[in-house]
Amino acid sequence: MSLLVVGTVAFDAIETPFGKTDKIIGGAATYISLAASYFTKDILLTSVVGGDFPKESLEMLRNHGVNLDGLQIKENEKSFFWSGRYHNDMNTRDTLATELNVIAGFDPIVPESAREPDFLMLGNLMPSLQHKVMAQLRKRPKLIVLDTMNFWMDTALEELQKTISQVDVLTINDAEARQLSGEYSLVKAAQKILEMGPKVLIIKKGEHGALLFNREQVFYAPALPLEDVFDPTGAGDSFAGGFIGYLAQTKDISFDNMKRAIIFGSAMASFTVEKFGVERLVGLAQDEVDERVQEFIDLVQFDISLV
Amino acid sequence: MSLLVVGTVAFDAIETPFGKTDKIIGGAATYISLAASYFTKDILLTSVVGGDFPKESLEMLRNHGVNLDGLQIKENEKSFFWSGRYHNDMNTRDTLATELNVIAGFDPIVPESAREPDFLMLGNLMPSLQHKVMAQLRKRPKLIVLDTMNFWMDTALEELQKTISQVDVLTINDAEARQLSGEYSLVKAAQKILEMGPKVLIIKKGEHGALLFNREQVFYAPALPLEDVFDPTGAGDSFAGGFIGYLAQTKDISFDNMKRAIIFGSAMASFTVEKFGVERLVGLAQDEVDERVQEFIDLVQFDISLV
Repeated sequence: MSLLVVGTVAFDAIETPFGKTDKIIGGAATYISLAASYFTKDILLTSVVGGDFPKESLEMLRNHGVNLDGLQIKENEKSFFWSGRYHNDMNTRDTLATELNVIAGFDPIVPESAREPDFLMLGNLMPSLQHKVMAQLRKRPKLIVLDTMNFWMDTALEELQKTISQVDVLTINDAEARQLSGEYSLVKAAQKILEMGPKVLIIKKGEHGALLFNREQVFYAPALPLEDVFDPTGAGDSFAGGFIGYLAQTKDISFDNMKRAIIFGSAMASFTVEKFGVERLVGLAQDEVDERVQEFIDLVQFDISLV
Repeated sequence: MSLLVVGTVAFDAIETPFGKTDKIIGGAATYISLAASYFTKDILLTSVVGGDFPKESLEMLRNHGVNLDGLQIKENEKSFFWSGRYHNDMNTRDTLATELNVIAGFDPIVPESAREPDFLMLGNLMPSLQHKVMAQLRKRPKLIVLDTMNFWMDTALEELQKTISQVDVLTINDAEARQLSGEYSLVKAAQKILEMGPKVLIIKKGEHGALLFNREQVFYAPALPLEDVFDPTGAGDSFAGGFIGYLAQTKDISFDNMKRAIIFGSAMASFTVEKFGVERLVGLAQDEVDERVQEFIDLVQFDISLV
């Protein structure tokens, strides 16, 4: 097993200034798996859905090479549902509804065959469940990446800190980095957070790109300036999926390779926001991915020779 | 004459979360000239001060190679004064006082010897005065860069649009680009603004870097993540000064050279914010500038080979 992914598989209903959707499929693990599938086909997803989750969406995931042996289907229950409305700036949103449904009683079970993954992606979820997945593994993965959010800092900080202390890479946004560290300066915030356990911190800044920190180095990845951000839902998860997918493909966890992985992750996120939900992330051609990455290269390339 | 600089030379009193100053020297043209002085010593400044402006500060500017023949000194008047207080995020501020003093009656006169500059930097000032300076030149400079702010969009939009239509490069921040264009997407905003006349638009995003647009290309320059932003006053002016100073030094106004110029401008801005006022921008060693530029190179460098 190359990549084990844990997180929600869910329904979303989204309103943006450009329109609104009925229930469409979403969830952190869905975006992560789809984005990662462009880099490795050896992915196993651990999650839970209700009997209402469309069989054709599961088939779509399988067609992307995602193994669903770790996906529990509770036929008589309903899938996790989130509904939100984005403001005009597309950076802020109101949650209109959160129905936990099957997630409330979720007890993740990693199939026996997947308990020695090389890479583990812990998508946004209750920290105790993320921790439970780690505890089921027979040996430590080469790399564990954890994504989380402010909600868990507000409601389960101690459990979150315990989980964070055991991972290699933490991905959070700038406001969350400030909240978790109590530092306004992102440089200071990063150093404090790296003292909590992770060797690497990725701070996601949405349209302003992302920062990659270890204790000695920092890398700034831009975001592609887009004509329209149609729906930001899943951008962070797609970023994480592209990031860990590229690392799993190349089997190189050096800082230099993480720089490349962040560019691939940013490219996947830039697709996601172009349409509602996972629509743009399904069935991309390799050419499209390469062209998008080339746009990132062109965007930041400059040539200065200091004498 | 290589570079003609127009803008305010003034007093500021600044409060930040880190401390406060009495009246210290500031003004757009002061920061621009100092930043540019690290790249070219053929600079003439056109502005006005009162008799209260310290002679040693004028001497400091001269020591940086800035020709003050275009600086009017109104012995019986007071210099322009601005006072402001920055919020904790250092991105927003309240203006506590604005005393126009000598600026109210300022009639810029470019000395005869400086009426054929290769480069013209129109620092933030009433658009009518920026226009007046252009009208005094005997021939069109190789490049005219204009910096302005939302205040003139609110109070003198028509005059500003007329002035903008005659320049080559416009520098504004992201909120101003949105205001001027009526577009939220910066990509769309840039295309609309480029239709107003300038060939190149620079959108300054503070701690999030800067975007360089022409009609076909876009470049994203990062900002250096800093431990502390001590005082943001003059960062945009220092950026503009480094930008045009580098262009004046290299005499190359291609898009590729503008990318380099933005990195040098960003480096100068990163010094300015490290201390109050111009303190950090005075008497830098060439080594310090080069090291800072190298930090920018290291910050964004990655190496992806697409097959």
